[in-house]
Amino acid sequence: MNPKVPIATLERLATYLRFLIDLQAMRLETISSTEVERQTGVNAAQFRKDLSYFGEFGKPGVGYNVVELQNRIARILKVDRDQPMIVLGAGNLGSALVGYHGLREHRFQMVGVFDSSPTKIGARLWDHEILDIATLRESNAQLGARIAIVAVPAAVAQSVADEAIASGIKALLNFAPIILRVPNRIVVRNVSFLQELAVLSYYLAVDAQK
Amino acid sequence: MNPKVPIATLERLATYLRFLIDLQAMRLETISSTEVERQTGVNAAQFRKDLSYFGEFGKPGVGYNVVELQNRIARILKVDRDQPMIVLGAGNLGSALVGYHGLREHRFQMVGVFDSSPTKIGARLWDHEILDIATLRESNAQLGARIAIVAVPAAVAQSVADEAIASGIKALLNFAPIILRVPNRIVVRNVSFLQELAVLSYYLAVDAQK
Repeated sequence: MNPKVPIATLERLATYLRFLIDLQAMRLETISSTEVERQTGVNAAQFRKDLSYFGEFGKPGVGYNVVELQNRIARILKVDRDQPMIVLGAGNLGSALVGYHGLREHRFQMVGVFDSSPTKIGARLWDHEILDIATLRESNAQLGARIAIVAVPAAVAQSVADEAIASGIKALLNFAPIILRVPNRIVVRNVSFLQELAVLSYYLAVDAQK
Repeated sequence: MNPKVPIATLERLATYLRFLIDLQAMRLETISSTEVERQTGVNAAQFRKDLSYFGEFGKPGVGYNVVELQNRIARILKVDRDQPMIVLGAGNLGSALVGYHGLREHRFQMVGVFDSSPTKIGARLWDHEILDIATLRESNAQLGARIAIVAVPAAVAQSVADEAIASGIKALLNFAPIILRVPNRIVVRNVSFLQELAVLSYYLAVDAQK
């Protein structure tokens, strides 16, 4: 394992994985890096470089075995094993994520959903009972999740993240529009709809000036 | 306007913008790049470099005026004007996005939501009536949206994207776990929960081996 792998490489590995799963569903046996380029938009040299961090892949003149490559990437990303995960916040976004089938497919296992609202605690959300976020430490001692999705309003996101870390969470996927301050050993990824839309908006304007 | 600005710079600009809005709410008047570093985790030199693509900002020894910097970044990202936007797919995720207050705050204006399910078409979602996705071209001729959020299942995402482009959409924020194939003039940003979680999962494993 090489912790120096660029994040962009890891992101692309997840893209390749998604693509390989589709190829397998179509019963394709092998794929060339040229074909990867044609279908994913990632150029063939970049694809080969991304894989090179993790050893030898593919056979010259034959290409890559779809199932084998898929399994190896899943192993690299550790998505080949069950990964218990909790969702903090059962609002619109949290509820949507709890109900999202795509995660289950990749063995991210939703083991609990938490909220602080008395009207939500105890209610059912899909096949979960919404738990009281005040019980996070005790609950996660049993659930054993190391990944938490932060889907609470910005104003409480930092304190919720602090509690999550105290409960044993090591990795946070943050949807709240704030910058979380966490100890070095904790990994955070931010999903910002505003950020994505702002980048689109910028390019729209560039295009309009051409 | 400089189309050569790195995407990472644009992404960070959106982060600064979010941060400046919070500072303004706290009635702070000026901010130094050191303080930006302390609070956002982006180092001061990077912050200055990001701004340098767009001219002169801040005063030596005084720092940056919060309101002025916020307005200039909003102008750069073109989020200082109303930006009509449609959501394609009124499932869990689409519904959550339509109800998401954070977007309105930044003048992204949800002007329509579309679905293909007969049980959804005509139903109300927040303050919208769900429209038939088969009417996308006629509807968007009136709505005038140039940004669309793709929140439909993977299997139909490509055909929905094609229709959206035919209806005048220039930028797509894609949540479907597939790689959309679009003409060069169209901008696509992908939000992949799987990708984010896979990156977290990788770092968790690195951490466990330390």
